[in-house]
Parts: sequence; C-alpha cells; structure tokens
Amino acid sequence: MKKLKRSARLVEMTQYLLFRPHVLIPLTTFADQYNSAKSSISEDLAIIKEVFEDEGLGELQTLAGAAGGVRFTPKMTKAASLRLVEGLCAQLQQTERVLPGGFLYMTDLLGQPSIIQDLGKTFATAFADEDVDVVMTVETKGIPLAYATASFMNLPVVLVRRDAKVTEGSAVSINYVSGSNKRIQTMSLAKRALKEESRVLIIDDFMRVGGTVRGMIDLLQEFNATVKGIGVFVESTEAEERLVDNYVSLARMTAVDPKTKQVGVFPGNYFDEKEG
Amino acid sequence: MKKLKRSARLVEMTQYLLFRPHVLIPLTTFADQYNSAKSSISEDLAIIKEVFEDEGLGELQTLAGAAGGVRFTPKMTKAASLRLVEGLCAQLQQTERVLPGGFLYMTDLLGQPSIIQDLGKTFATAFADEDVDVVMTVETKGIPLAYATASFMNLPVVLVRRDAKVTEGSAVSINYVSGSNKRIQTMSLAKRALKEESRVLIIDDFMRVGGTVRGMIDLLQEFNATVKGIGVFVESTEAEERLVDNYVSLARMTAVDPKTKQVGVFPGNYFDEKEG
Repeated sequence: MKKLKRSARLVEMTQYLLFRPHVLIPLTTFADQYNSAKSSISEDLAIIKEVFEDEGLGELQTLAGAAGGVRFTPKMTKAASLRLVEGLCAQLQQTERVLPGGFLYMTDLLGQPSIIQDLGKTFATAFADEDVDVVMTVETKGIPLAYATASFMNLPVVLVRRDAKVTEGSAVSINYVSGSNKRIQTMSLAKRALKEESRVLIIDDFMRVGGTVRGMIDLLQEFNATVKGIGVFVESTEAEERLVDNYVSLARMTAVDPKTKQVGVFPGNYFDEKEG
Repeated sequence: MKKLKRSARLVEMTQYLLFRPHVLIPLTTFADQYNSAKSSISEDLAIIKEVFEDEGLGELQTLAGAAGGVRFTPKMTKAASLRLVEGLCAQLQQTERVLPGGFLYMTDLLGQPSIIQDLGKTFATAFADEDVDVVMTVETKGIPLAYATASFMNLPVVLVRRDAKVTEGSAVSINYVSGSNKRIQTMSLAKRALKEESRVLIIDDFMRVGGTVRGMIDLLQEFNATVKGIGVFVESTEAEERLVDNYVSLARMTAVDPKTKQVGVFPGNYFDEKEG
C-alpha cells in the first residue's frame, strides 16, 4: 500500500473523480488506497470541491453516514455553454454551408470531439435532475452527441437503427412519417437492447418537424418505456407545427433563403429566459 | 488574476491537462493564470508527471526553450488494456450472444461509454507514434470507437456513409464487395469532409474478410490520402485470406459452431508477443 503526500493525493483524486462521474465513492476507498486518515481525505475533497466549483467543472457532493461518500456530477455553466453555442452559431451562419434543399453542412463541427464533449456536457447539465436509465439516439449523426451525453451521466447508450440489422437479433420495428419530406420510413430497436419500463433520454443532432423523434417516442411505447427528456442540438424554426413538445434545443436555425443562401442560427430554447 | 495555493493549483492543472490531450501548453500560460513563478509551475508539473506515470494515465512531456511547454499524451498500459479485453472476451463468449448467421451480439458492450473510452484510449496508445491528421470510420457501430480514439489523440473524425446523404453536399462514392456475403455495396464521403493528402487512421468495430476496410482504403485513394494505421476491435479468424494487412486488432473470435453455439473470443494481435 502506497503512502502519498497530499500533493500527489490531490492529483490522483482529481483524475479519479473526473473519470467516474455520478459514481458514489466511499471515503474509505480513498483512505485505504492512499493509506491516509479519513480526515485528511475530507480536507483533500474540500480543496477539490472548491476548485471544481470555481472552474465550473461540476459539483462534488459529500454524503455523510455509513452509506456515504463523495460523488462528482459534471456540469457546464449556462454562461460557458452559451459561449460555445454562440461560437458555433457564428460558424453555422456562413453561406457556404447551405446545401441544396435548404440543409446546412455541420458535419465538420460535429466531427470535432472537443465540441461534441462540451455539447454532451451541456445536455448532461440540462437533464441532470431527471432520473434516467439510458440515453437513446437514432443513427447516424446523433451518435457522438448521445455518447458524450451518456458518458457525463454514467449511462449506457441505446441505438435505434434505420433498418433491422442481422447482427442484433430479433427487433421491434415501426413505421413513421419523416416530417420533412413526408416519406414513410422504418426504424427498429433490438429487443435485447432495452429493458422494459426504462426511463429514456432522447438525444439527436437535428429536428425540423420532429418526425424522427416522434418515431422514437412511439417505438419506446412498445417497450413500455418512459421518455424523461429530449435534447436536440439544432432545431429548425421553419416548421409551423411540431410533432414533439417539451424538448431542449441548443441552437435554432431559420429557413434558408434559397436565392441569397442566407440563414440565421441563434442559441436555442435552453438559453431562453425563464419567466419567474 | 487569482493567486492560488499549490494544492488548488495542482487540482486545476490536473484537470486542465486531462482535458487537453496532445496540446502543447506553454508554462507561461499556467504562470500567468495562477500568478505564480515558472519555477513553482515546474515543480507542480513534476508532481503531476509522477502521479500520471505511476497510475498509467499517460506521459507528461516537458519541452524546454522559447517554444517549449508541457504536453499530455494519454496512454493506457498494455497490461491495463489486456485486463479490459480479457474481461470483454469472457463476456463475448457467452453462447446466448450467438445470433443467426454466426454473428455475435456485442451492441450492449459497445453501448457502455466507459468501455468505449478505454478501447479508444487503447487505440490512441497503439497509434501514438503515427503522424495522423484524422480518424475515419464508416457508419454505424464503429462511430463511438472512432470518437473515443480521436478525443484521446486530439483529432477530428471523418465519417464515411453507406449512402450519399443530401445534408453533406457533393460526395465521392465507390462500390466495394462486402467480404462476408459478396454483395456489392456503396460507400461515400463528402468532398468537403476530408482535405487532399490527409494522413488517416481507420477505426472499425468488426472485421471478417476486410471488405469494408478495403473499401475505405480505396475511397481514400480518391482523396490522395495516406492510411497511417488500421484498428479494429474484433477480428474474425474465420476468413482464410484477408483483403487488408497491417491492422491492429484488440480481440479475435473463432467461427461460431452453429449447432452448439460455441464461440471462442481471445485477445487480438495487439497483445501478441513481438519477436525480438
């Protein structure tokens, strides 16, 4: 058993906590690991807690008692998330991103792991108080966002496929109407991928009318699951009516002007002022 | 400007470095940020370096001189990677995972962000010495692995699609023969997704004959790109001949016995003893 100085212990404990979000760690784990008194460990944790809070990294909660310990909940301050999103909005408004059909090229931004991490941390903060069992998304572009969100919430990811793949065994499939082009499409989820009565957080990269998210909600009914939250990176404000209520969006885009290729992209409803 | 004690500074610097892999950080950044002498910062870094190395978290490299600074390279020791992979192999051998067609259900394991993170860190370690610009994968199941690998290497991810999507603009498509079922399939990559002459690391979840990876290699030729490495999570040892050489596999599975549903899963070539 190693005996560490406070300085080395602080480095070790910091990395240990950062890599184990939402896990309750008994103080005895640290005390045994570092061959230190619990009182020293408590002092270490007070230092770490203060820095984490000053830096807006998240909360370090200490639970007293026999079943007690310390738990790290990663958070991102709304101000930091807004800075990130405003930077992304400025980039997304560039007219060279406008593609035929009024779509917006954003694959390059979603290909940056550091951006994905911070967007995931923002979703994890937005839904931190919900009691969630799994994060769900549909292939393809929402996958990195869903994994980033799930990693900060210490949850597994469940992936809905656009067709039933042979490598996943028996599956439940539903048809749904894609809101944008009114085509009937299929999505399916392997039976063994989701326990009955799971509490689910849905994450996706883009929402126009909400047909895809609506499809996921309908699919979840087949598993008697409950939707505890919906988060989308960009919503289009083009649609007059949506098939989904109560979602969190991080950015909003207006309709693209097909002639001038002008498009407006603004922070989403997550940043709206709540009425007191 | 804040003036921090050493204890708080160590916590801050630890988290700062962990979140910025492969980035060269000048010592003046820390000195200015914490209003401390460079000599104190150097002492802090020596403590952090020792803990990171003892814990097998990675290397902290200090570069002297005017353009100098400190750089954190996340690594996972081969012993730690082997422990992880052996645990996964034991789970993958369960006969209830065998699906019709000799496939193996592994979606649940690949849905655990903590497993994905450690597999990504293993790939990042395996290819740490290669000069790579981007990590590439093909949809769908390799995506989380590719992002995890890329995040530890501080690189962007490029995603090859199974069909050209309207939301990505003009694309280069190729046909390739899927090794397993000899069907002709299509994959495509948006033109603006990859710069000419990029150096690419290919990551995927599964390889049997290697048709999909071979397809990615052929596609890369259209971009005058160079393949600097290929990493697959599980390779099947069933194929007599492969379309790909020089890849790193983390696990190997034997052919599935269709009657008994027995399958063997073992650590991959990354763990083979190299001949001296």
